[in-house]
Amino acid sequence: MTAPLLVGIDVGGTKIAGVAVDAVTNALRAEHRQPIDDAPLELQVAGLVRRLIDGAGEERPAAIGIAVPGLVDAGTGVMRLAVNVEVGELAIGPLVEAAIGAPCFVEHDARAAALWLIDQRGAQDSLAYLSVGTGISAAVVIDGRLVRGVNGLAGEIGHTRAVADGPLCSCGLRGCLEMVAAGPAVARRAADAIARGEATSLAAGAGPEQIFRAAAEGDPLATAIADEVGAHLARAVRTIVLLYGVDRVVIGGGMSRAGAPFLEPILAELKREMAASPLIAHAMAPTPVELLPNDADPGAWGAVVVARSRGGDGRAAPKGEVADG
Amino acid sequence: MTAPLLVGIDVGGTKIAGVAVDAVTNALRAEHRQPIDDAPLELQVAGLVRRLIDGAGEERPAAIGIAVPGLVDAGTGVMRLAVNVEVGELAIGPLVEAAIGAPCFVEHDARAAALWLIDQRGAQDSLAYLSVGTGISAAVVIDGRLVRGVNGLAGEIGHTRAVADGPLCSCGLRGCLEMVAAGPAVARRAADAIARGEATSLAAGAGPEQIFRAAAEGDPLATAIADEVGAHLARAVRTIVLLYGVDRVVIGGGMSRAGAPFLEPILAELKREMAASPLIAHAMAPTPVELLPNDADPGAWGAVVVARSRGGDGRAAPKGEVADG
Repeated sequence: MTAPLLVGIDVGGTKIAGVAVDAVTNALRAEHRQPIDDAPLELQVAGLVRRLIDGAGEERPAAIGIAVPGLVDAGTGVMRLAVNVEVGELAIGPLVEAAIGAPCFVEHDARAAALWLIDQRGAQDSLAYLSVGTGISAAVVIDGRLVRGVNGLAGEIGHTRAVADGPLCSCGLRGCLEMVAAGPAVARRAADAIARGEATSLAAGAGPEQIFRAAAEGDPLATAIADEVGAHLARAVRTIVLLYGVDRVVIGGGMSRAGAPFLEPILAELKREMAASPLIAHAMAPTPVELLPNDADPGAWGAVVVARSRGGDGRAAPKGEVADG
Repeated sequence: MTAPLLVGIDVGGTKIAGVAVDAVTNALRAEHRQPIDDAPLELQVAGLVRRLIDGAGEERPAAIGIAVPGLVDAGTGVMRLAVNVEVGELAIGPLVEAAIGAPCFVEHDARAAALWLIDQRGAQDSLAYLSVGTGISAAVVIDGRLVRGVNGLAGEIGHTRAVADGPLCSCGLRGCLEMVAAGPAVARRAADAIARGEATSLAAGAGPEQIFRAAAEGDPLATAIADEVGAHLARAVRTIVLLYGVDRVVIGGGMSRAGAPFLEPILAELKREMAASPLIAHAMAPTPVELLPNDADPGAWGAVVVARSRGGDGRAAPKGEVADG
């Protein structure tokens, strides 16, 4: 008899990715990714789970984890407000659980990623995952425990204040970090400068990827934008480290795929702060700030960690173990 | 035989306060406060502990808690950088433990206060205590666990950025929250305006207490200052609630003794943010923001909670219980 199987599913804006792993060795036994189509999301997820179980040659997984965007109620398995996947309120956890006949646990995608990172490092450690893409949010693990917040919104640093004024944020406030450092803000900042006739090699409509590439090549406008974004994100890292006292900050999300031209201005600003302030130097000393590797799939693997760690919440096995399902 | 005794000591800038309580019923059995003098701090604390034990008619306490300012290593009982009590690095925990012959546990004073608040409410709850005085810092409990941070600095919101520029902070950075919303900043802001000849009833050298009292009486300069400080602190509360997801924020510290004229501008700004932003309204909905009562002595009572909860860390009794010492 083989070891029990864990399935991790990552629901993104355009695709669903999944892995099936050996619950004991964590060895990969099946993986698949498919574009999102028009079928109800829970049917697409259940279909992918079945495909992964078949691929692994099993009947049923011990537990399933699902990482989703939006506001997630991890207790009930309900997702809400996930505008990028165009579902309203959906009890995806209970629906997939009923379809497959195995315990199913749902988590916010950034939090699943943080759980995966902490799982790789050491289960009692602390860590912040800062996701910078269309929006900006953080997921934080303290002493091995995910911080969800009573309001379900812990880590929403994108809506703390970065500047005194600025364009109106989709949240209703002005000056939010997202409005000066997330993808759309970066693109808008470039478009405005191009419209004003500033000297640049950037074409109208350049996105973050082009802008950071141009910064790496010395384009003056792109360099100025990368430096501004880096300074704002460095202050966000400072806020995270001062408030949570984590000793590792990993940055992921769409913008982070720009790599070094994105990361270096953040590190340069943090270095300036540490040189100016013994307090910040003390706070940041044990805290490397690094990018998620480009080829990492933290959502699906994070969902596996969710399935493993929560598979025992009164249903299957004690925390940290997995039931023989 | 009476129930075991717990002693809680609060070391402040000018005085040391202590209580001795019944470990089972929490009933007060002795209390005393004395000014700080020139003797070594550990001798003053040990003397106060003996006085409290004598007052309670016991030989020895089951455990002692000590709340101190500065950077605290709760594991070793060492305090550092507590400029207001003029000690360098002091192993106050081991020294008092040796002098009294009972387990002694040390905690940062704001964190002790947060533990006391959470103890009164429900041991698995979440809460932030925001101390606004000479400096600004937060102490946070999440799901009944104090957040200390790997760097020992978790909650140092006073050194997050509040404004783009501003006077140089003692930490070495510019624009820190402390430099626009803590006591010295409030007094300096008034002094600058008075020197410029702005219309006000405030005398030169007015401190925060006079300024908030004048604001309550309609003084235009004092009102403007109270509103500015309130807006900065409201954004600090927003940051705390968005990052930690706590569902209660209690504000204490020297500035908070000004009462309603201090609190009302904070609440007014939060109300504006909640009206403008459904996200902030959702995040803040379960979160009352309130002042610590003026007559509360959270340091000494918090130290009792520290003694009770940590008295069992491998030395006396399981967590949450107290050894019969």
